[in-house]
Amino acid sequence: MPISLHAPLDMHLHLRDGDMLSRVAPLSAHTFSGALVMPNLVPPVESREDVLQYKSRILEAIGDARFTPYMTLFFKPTYSREFLESVHDDVTAIKLYPAGITTNSEGGVSGFDVEELRPALEAMSDLGIPLCIHGETGGFVMDREAEFVPIYEKLATHFPRLKIIMEHITTKESVEALDRFDNLYATITLHHLIITLDEVAGGMLQPHLFCKPIAKRPEDREALLRVALDAHPKVMFGSDSAPHPREAKECPGCAAGVFTAPIALQLLTELFETNGASLEKLQAFVSGNARQIYHLEPQPKEVVLAKEPFTVPENYDGVVPFYFGTTLDYTVHTVI
Amino acid sequence: MPISLHAPLDMHLHLRDGDMLSRVAPLSAHTFSGALVMPNLVPPVESREDVLQYKSRILEAIGDARFTPYMTLFFKPTYSREFLESVHDDVTAIKLYPAGITTNSEGGVSGFDVEELRPALEAMSDLGIPLCIHGETGGFVMDREAEFVPIYEKLATHFPRLKIIMEHITTKESVEALDRFDNLYATITLHHLIITLDEVAGGMLQPHLFCKPIAKRPEDREALLRVALDAHPKVMFGSDSAPHPREAKECPGCAAGVFTAPIALQLLTELFETNGASLEKLQAFVSGNARQIYHLEPQPKEVVLAKEPFTVPENYDGVVPFYFGTTLDYTVHTVI
Repeated sequence: MPISLHAPLDMHLHLRDGDMLSRVAPLSAHTFSGALVMPNLVPPVESREDVLQYKSRILEAIGDARFTPYMTLFFKPTYSREFLESVHDDVTAIKLYPAGITTNSEGGVSGFDVEELRPALEAMSDLGIPLCIHGETGGFVMDREAEFVPIYEKLATHFPRLKIIMEHITTKESVEALDRFDNLYATITLHHLIITLDEVAGGMLQPHLFCKPIAKRPEDREALLRVALDAHPKVMFGSDSAPHPREAKECPGCAAGVFTAPIALQLLTELFETNGASLEKLQAFVSGNARQIYHLEPQPKEVVLAKEPFTVPENYDGVVPFYFGTTLDYTVHTVI
Repeated sequence: MPISLHAPLDMHLHLRDGDMLSRVAPLSAHTFSGALVMPNLVPPVESREDVLQYKSRILEAIGDARFTPYMTLFFKPTYSREFLESVHDDVTAIKLYPAGITTNSEGGVSGFDVEELRPALEAMSDLGIPLCIHGETGGFVMDREAEFVPIYEKLATHFPRLKIIMEHITTKESVEALDRFDNLYATITLHHLIITLDEVAGGMLQPHLFCKPIAKRPEDREALLRVALDAHPKVMFGSDSAPHPREAKECPGCAAGVFTAPIALQLLTELFETNGASLEKLQAFVSGNARQIYHLEPQPKEVVLAKEPFTVPENYDGVVPFYFGTTLDYTVHTVI
């Protein structure tokens, strides 16, 4: 029996720019109704003009596909209320990066002083603009996310009307934080539902599975899987699909990022089925929860997945995807 | 002031075979008096003939260098007392690999049943042949060595006259085990004294720092550094220098191994100096302790290191070394 997903949403996506944008954007636009587009370009997206221009480049790259790029700004503590009011209609969220923590995040936030952040975060609370956060400290790589949880809690406590999205969570500590604060939400990637550090570095080293935050321990993966399969109403699918050309991955100084966009729905369907989760839960995880949390009305799109073997290509125009060369249970049959 | 190291010994070295042997053996033979040579070739070194033939290929590869390859056998529980007596004069130690745990270890030990191991280990105890062990379980990559400590302890308890060398230890748990059993010893690599998982995967991913056992946490590195700098009498330098051609490292499925042999003494000297450890301790760590533990009388060799900048080559004949492109404080000035 083919299954059908309505208006899938990817609430954390890297579309890059220029040549890479034109390579990868059509792949997401094919199977998703929309995606929250990350702003960490070089230079980052930090003005209304940046947002509008980047959005028009995305729309150009996807041609006539029915796909909404939900735009984000790169958070700066210096954003004024007037500025935020002026961009309010053009952005879906604002993304906060701790300085230097991941690809192109050098201009991010260096301390998390509540009073320094207050003017911008109060204005966002009033305007109803969600704050997405890459939550990692500068600590030891396996501890960075768990160490960031107190910062999530501090912000959630001091700005109780601000919707805070813990992006691409990878630990049981983050999962546990979800239920302690009404205003904490989370995105979860596909790959963190499947891999741990064992898949990255437990056998041979797999650069195409290397990402930030790094995949963690088995008990962390179990915690993520539990809330995803249950479609916990505060979690959403966000692929964090992050394309790099093959040569930037298979080298010393391999770039962080796993490219999942073109295979995400096929593999999520297999994952939910294998784990005995219902189609209803899958639908909520890949669309319904995000619609509720972000108050979105995505463009209609129906993705029909047939239970037919699909062998993941070795690369998509020079970008090596997650599960390359592997045969999946589901294939995208038609998109209506 | 130049410093001088007498008869340095590398008590854990991979020399490979064929073309790679001829590329790397002269580099170790230049600065070391001898090295314990690992037996995990394909097929492994497991007969007296294998040992003698491999030894002669090594001697051929190093030409007229003053260097002793201390030979090892690949441990099999089926080795009889007669067999062990027959190889006793030709091997310095026997190396045990849990099955499938690292490069070319498929034929290793699958269980650690004391009674199954008793005949071989009792014979080794009687003959005074040390047992070197790659101590990792098949568990989660960051836990494998700590999980193996109970197996070390079981073997140390049941075979109290057997000298057991915990090879390339990477955790505080292994360091702590050293002092609990008279017959437990350890080798420590250069790279595990310097890197943690942060250097491997905390920034960009660095395939040339990927090895088995994987580099661990900061507190583990601290524990290793403490006993190495103090030249704890039960620890010895063993580089675990493990060459792979560049193309086997910069690819999906990157091979495990860090290549340190040609820069080991320069960087160890810098490390001990930077940390305020004495030359006497360095001498004990790189030679004296091994002489005591293994009862070795190495060939005389005096390695004079001058405090002159030495920029590590990008590669040695296609093999990328640890710290490639970095400038070290010490250079090998002369070898007498």
